[in-house]
Amino acid sequence: MNLSLSRRRMLALAGTGLAAPLLGCSRADRKPPASSLPVRIEVVAGGLARPWSLAFLPDGSLLVTEKSGSMKRVAGGKARPVAGVPSVMAEGQGGLFDVVLAPDFATTGRLFLTLAQGSVAANGTRLVAARLDGDRLRDVTPLWTATPAKRGAVHFGGRLLLLPDGTLLLTTGDGFDFREEAQRASSPLGKTIRLTQAGEPAPGNPAAGPEALPEVWTLGHRNPQGLARDPLSGRIYLSEHGPRGGDEVNLLSAGENYGWPVATRGMDYSGATISPFRSYPGMIDPVHVWTPSIAPSGLAVCRGTLFPEWEGDLFSGALVDRELRRLRLSADGARVLGEERVAPGLGARVRDVRVGPDGALWLLTDETPGQVLRLVRA
Amino acid sequence: MNLSLSRRRMLALAGTGLAAPLLGCSRADRKPPASSLPVRIEVVAGGLARPWSLAFLPDGSLLVTEKSGSMKRVAGGKARPVAGVPSVMAEGQGGLFDVVLAPDFATTGRLFLTLAQGSVAANGTRLVAARLDGDRLRDVTPLWTATPAKRGAVHFGGRLLLLPDGTLLLTTGDGFDFREEAQRASSPLGKTIRLTQAGEPAPGNPAAGPEALPEVWTLGHRNPQGLARDPLSGRIYLSEHGPRGGDEVNLLSAGENYGWPVATRGMDYSGATISPFRSYPGMIDPVHVWTPSIAPSGLAVCRGTLFPEWEGDLFSGALVDRELRRLRLSADGARVLGEERVAPGLGARVRDVRVGPDGALWLLTDETPGQVLRLVRA
Repeated sequence: MNLSLSRRRMLALAGTGLAAPLLGCSRADRKPPASSLPVRIEVVAGGLARPWSLAFLPDGSLLVTEKSGSMKRVAGGKARPVAGVPSVMAEGQGGLFDVVLAPDFATTGRLFLTLAQGSVAANGTRLVAARLDGDRLRDVTPLWTATPAKRGAVHFGGRLLLLPDGTLLLTTGDGFDFREEAQRASSPLGKTIRLTQAGEPAPGNPAAGPEALPEVWTLGHRNPQGLARDPLSGRIYLSEHGPRGGDEVNLLSAGENYGWPVATRGMDYSGATISPFRSYPGMIDPVHVWTPSIAPSGLAVCRGTLFPEWEGDLFSGALVDRELRRLRLSADGARVLGEERVAPGLGARVRDVRVGPDGALWLLTDETPGQVLRLVRA
Repeated sequence: MNLSLSRRRMLALAGTGLAAPLLGCSRADRKPPASSLPVRIEVVAGGLARPWSLAFLPDGSLLVTEKSGSMKRVAGGKARPVAGVPSVMAEGQGGLFDVVLAPDFATTGRLFLTLAQGSVAANGTRLVAARLDGDRLRDVTPLWTATPAKRGAVHFGGRLLLLPDGTLLLTTGDGFDFREEAQRASSPLGKTIRLTQAGEPAPGNPAAGPEALPEVWTLGHRNPQGLARDPLSGRIYLSEHGPRGGDEVNLLSAGENYGWPVATRGMDYSGATISPFRSYPGMIDPVHVWTPSIAPSGLAVCRGTLFPEWEGDLFSGALVDRELRRLRLSADGARVLGEERVAPGLGARVRDVRVGPDGALWLLTDETPGQVLRLVRA
């Protein structure tokens, strides 16, 4: 694991030829074509306020988080408020993020939430456990908080994934002003973090040296807000926001470094160069890059859905492009063979995409009013 | 026709017993029950900016007006801009309103638009003719403008209906500050206006006295934005916004006075009484009143739709209540037997509702992004 790479060393290496040309990485400078598969989009529920994530409950209802810090239970097309949601820092990009059910949810009501906590002056991404009792959360318990606190109200990551071994994989952002922290294994910023359901560093995490946080699983991320596991291959994909350009999809492996901010296809919002490197030795190239940025949000792998044509494909919401993107993957899952725009007329910021238990693709729109949508065959 | 009723005369009559009790008029002080008929709402197109009205073109595409003064042609789930839309006064409640195809649209491309024209200091509701040529409007011709101009940016009415005799029925608002004008047949405010397709007063309009505008068809309206004709019975229904409470559905007859502001169930936004009368001799009581206000928008009569259970029922969008209301009418169409909330989980301001050529109910959401939605059987 590449624990720390100073800007000085980056600059020293620039121009040495070690900045490899882009290999095995697709790039989309132009809008991909629209999908020709006829789909229908159904409104499951509306009237939500910037919904961020959803969980399918065993009784057929849904839990939906809203960015401002509230949660709704959606059943029969109607959204009822859930009480007892822990307070969040609802400033800037901060708020309530993901909701994931514990494996024993059906009997215990246990679930996990991610959120931004603190103030604009001192805050961080937090993992919380709670128990759903009817329309109320009880026993809210903070499990893990990104420490030390960062300042500012952007780049929290916040996507959460339950792995088959019962551990939790959580994304954190680089905090924007602290991008070099993404390269330091001693910092919780710009990482994936693997924890037990008690919030402890998960056994088997890659050894990252004496100064490293034992919860770090991968490093070198900017602001990852998409995270999905292919249930067939077991591959884990992460999407992250680039700066101006350079949005990425990465195929994760424990202990690897995904390059930010040493290697990126993006430039700074000012137009300034962030790094001379688009690739870097010892750092993993992305599977896919979006330049210009689409602002990727939730991520899903299509398995066993209503769409056999899309079996094994990766789907990403697009906040800025206000649609869904389909990525057709190679058999090894490491290359993108083609990209399509799905539902390009949707015209709403897509915050999340999930495969539902019914085989449909479920979407959330990051709007007020926001909606839960269901994508099925036309 | 009750041409002019001064406030003095209103006050003189108050307490004389002439203020009749409410008869033949339903009232909804509480939320009606939700419909038990399972429906599905499909997103036809999104990404619109406060869509106001739609027209079904013979080729299966749609024209959709947007309040700010633009128009989109929707086909294959995507919305393309239409060029050549006449400029509008896009201030306050002003903007581009309705679009109605001429009977010879298929061969000529002729259509009619309603809009607010002028400035905040001097403006009025206008009817315009144009010709659709591909994705462009040509030969834009103003046909009728509410004269004299009013000031302020509210209460334009603006709903338009093509009648079987080829005449056009247009609603105008009272302009808010000029509510007594709704009782004066010499004023274009607070009326329905019946015109030929050349914009002339339609033959057969009720004789309204020497000082009356020959285009006036009914009077005593506040801000009517719903207008629908039952194709079976020929009855014409109009919905109008009350002040605080007192939203109304009226069954129209040529030359009749619908009471505003002499008779109303609403009170002023200040809480002040507008009129001591809830009913008034010689003025027509509403078929239905909503107190508190739901802010009724588009109106449709359900005939030959996918919903035989709803045959002959009246549907109204609700802007404030963010849903659709179903009114079950008596056989004579003059009483409401029951009311239901349809799609109460929609959670978006419903601006228009139409029966589509496919038998579905089509909705527009008054949001940005706004949508074209299709309501079908689940």
